Amino acid sequence: MAVSSARRPTLAVVGATGSVGAVLLQILSQHADIWGEIRLVASARSAGRKLSVRGQEVEVVALEESVFDGVDVAMFDVPDDVSAQWAPVAASKGVVVVDNSAAFRMDPDVPLVVPEVNPHAARVRPRGIVANPNCTTLSMIVAVGALHAEFGLRELVVSSYQAVSGAGRAGVETLRAQLSLVAGTELGTSPGDVRRAVGDQTGPFPEPVALNVVPWAGSLREDGWSSEEMKVRDESRKILGLPALPVAVTCVRVPVVTTHSLTVHARFQSEVTVDRAREILATAPGVVLFDNPAAGEFPTPADAVGTDPTWVGRVRRSLDDPTGLELFVCGDNLRKGAALNTAQIAELVAGEFA
Amino acid sequence: MAVSSARRPTLAVVGATGSVGAVLLQILSQHADIWGEIRLVASARSAGRKLSVRGQEVEVVALEESVFDGVDVAMFDVPDDVSAQWAPVAASKGVVVVDNSAAFRMDPDVPLVVPEVNPHAARVRPRGIVANPNCTTLSMIVAVGALHAEFGLRELVVSSYQAVSGAGRAGVETLRAQLSLVAGTELGTSPGDVRRAVGDQTGPFPEPVALNVVPWAGSLREDGWSSEEMKVRDESRKILGLPALPVAVTCVRVPVVTTHSLTVHARFQSEVTVDRAREILATAPGVVLFDNPAAGEFPTPADAVGTDPTWVGRVRRSLDDPTGLELFVCGDNLRKGAALNTAQIAELVAGEFA
Repeated sequence: MAVSSARRPTLAVVGATGSVGAVLLQILSQHADIWGEIRLVASARSAGRKLSVRGQEVEVVALEESVFDGVDVAMFDVPDDVSAQWAPVAASKGVVVVDNSAAFRMDPDVPLVVPEVNPHAARVRPRGIVANPNCTTLSMIVAVGALHAEFGLRELVVSSYQAVSGAGRAGVETLRAQLSLVAGTELGTSPGDVRRAVGDQTGPFPEPVALNVVPWAGSLREDGWSSEEMKVRDESRKILGLPALPVAVTCVRVPVVTTHSLTVHARFQSEVTVDRAREILATAPGVVLFDNPAAGEFPTPADAVGTDPTWVGRVRRSLDDPTGLELFVCGDNLRKGAALNTAQIAELVAGEFA
Repeated sequence: MAVSSARRPTLAVVGATGSVGAVLLQILSQHADIWGEIRLVASARSAGRKLSVRGQEVEVVALEESVFDGVDVAMFDVPDDVSAQWAPVAASKGVVVVDNSAAFRMDPDVPLVVPEVNPHAARVRPRGIVANPNCTTLSMIVAVGALHAEFGLRELVVSSYQAVSGAGRAGVETLRAQLSLVAGTELGTSPGDVRRAVGDQTGPFPEPVALNVVPWAGSLREDGWSSEEMKVRDESRKILGLPALPVAVTCVRVPVVTTHSLTVHARFQSEVTVDRAREILATAPGVVLFDNPAAGEFPTPADAVGTDPTWVGRVRRSLDDPTGLELFVCGDNLRKGAALNTAQIAELVAGEFA
């Protein structure tokens, strides 16, 4: 595409009215303003609404082919099937699509990009699409990627503590409604008492999430795996460029509004030291090392929510393996886990139009 | 000790007024009644209170040496320092002590017993004391032990989702008070908002537990490990009779009242199949296999609380290791995790008096 170096690129935000869309508009208002026009796109139902971005009210337009006319970069945050249909339409018009659905993440012709880990991958995009990873992968991969660059990752075992906003606004509303039902009660001490109190108000979750943890996220895949677990494994491998990396994952939903946490057991090619691991994490872009248990310092969702970096703490060398490290990691699933990484990829790509 | 086979053994419950003590009295009232006298013992402060056991009111007596006169078996559920002082006093009077503190668990002359896993160990007790494991270890070890007996365990990586009642009544009251503060609010979306709402009402926890998860349980040990994590590793090794087993653990507190959950990544000596693992778990004593994700079946604390067995679900073969299994396990930390296992050990020992 011939672009004058003076022109600032035009951005479309597709899915501007969703919960990730809302955070995207916030981030676009906070980051250095590199964009020319910002066009807000959503379903026909939401067309005509006005949303604020960069301090201005912008009217939402309905998704159709013509909205991509003159657009340089489009961020998509819409359901998988909508992305599958519309991202290629936009790409065919020369738009670089940054897609936050699962539709293209494992397509070998679509790079899966985390700017702190594999920024180079964003330059090679045969289909004109760059994919944004799943929020659970994103909540830990910046920290893991920094350690991998130094030590060479050999194996990963992770368990998630996933926030309800990973299931969208319905997830948040469900937890809040359930908390109102159980607060001020003596529930949580006999079989099924929480379930009876919650009744059929389980929203997008298979079980109550208040006063409970639920070892399920996503849909059922082969051999008892959840789609969320397969994403964490397959996407980690692709981002790190380690297609045969052994990855074990169990994904669990917890009663936290926003910010995913993960325990990470990582084994490397050679011996590691906690001191060197801390140095790496303390200086890695996009990572905050918060790790002083003697002073009561370790990351929790209550600290990390609403912030950009991946918070890392509880850094220990594995007791029985000098090549292993144990970590506890927190990342805001709506920011780095979705909107922020999408914005970072778009900004990376925008550099090509300068 | 010469005991007539007609006489039923005398039991002392030391720490009868605590939260585990309350569950112990419940269990003693539900199980087959093998005991003669049951003597209830607590601190001088609680002496004179009456508690119900086996449908009768029994007056609590103050802990002193004479309370062990004529006692055959004593269950201790008291702080570590009280056990350290008083268990040897009772043992010196010929009492078999079943101790639920951490004071003797790693003593090589004290067996650490889980009746479904290593019942034989209870017979060899040079100090007259049998130790009951920590609640987090107990919440998973019956399932792990059953698989170990078949496949031979080679490595364990576990992450916990620990209930607040693991920190006693103060833990439960703290979560309930915090839930009343956050329910009906929009909290959980900006940094520190939950912390500000909770203020200094964090009770026994270093951070808010409502709308949060806290990667810390116990006290600080060397190299950044928590005491709870060291217990899970050291006790698992001792119970399974695998003193060199590599064990990686991260312990995390979650806003659940009662029932600890754990993710388990277990590697065995040879190839495993999910079918055989399910058969073992479906028939192992003390285990409930609840594992049909297609029907929405997997264990959660809301199901397992108030029940005796270890609930196991999400049984999968590791994606990248034919010798590995992934599990999600739930166990009531006050029942199997404390009172039930203590009662089971005492009943095992009582058999010697028959």
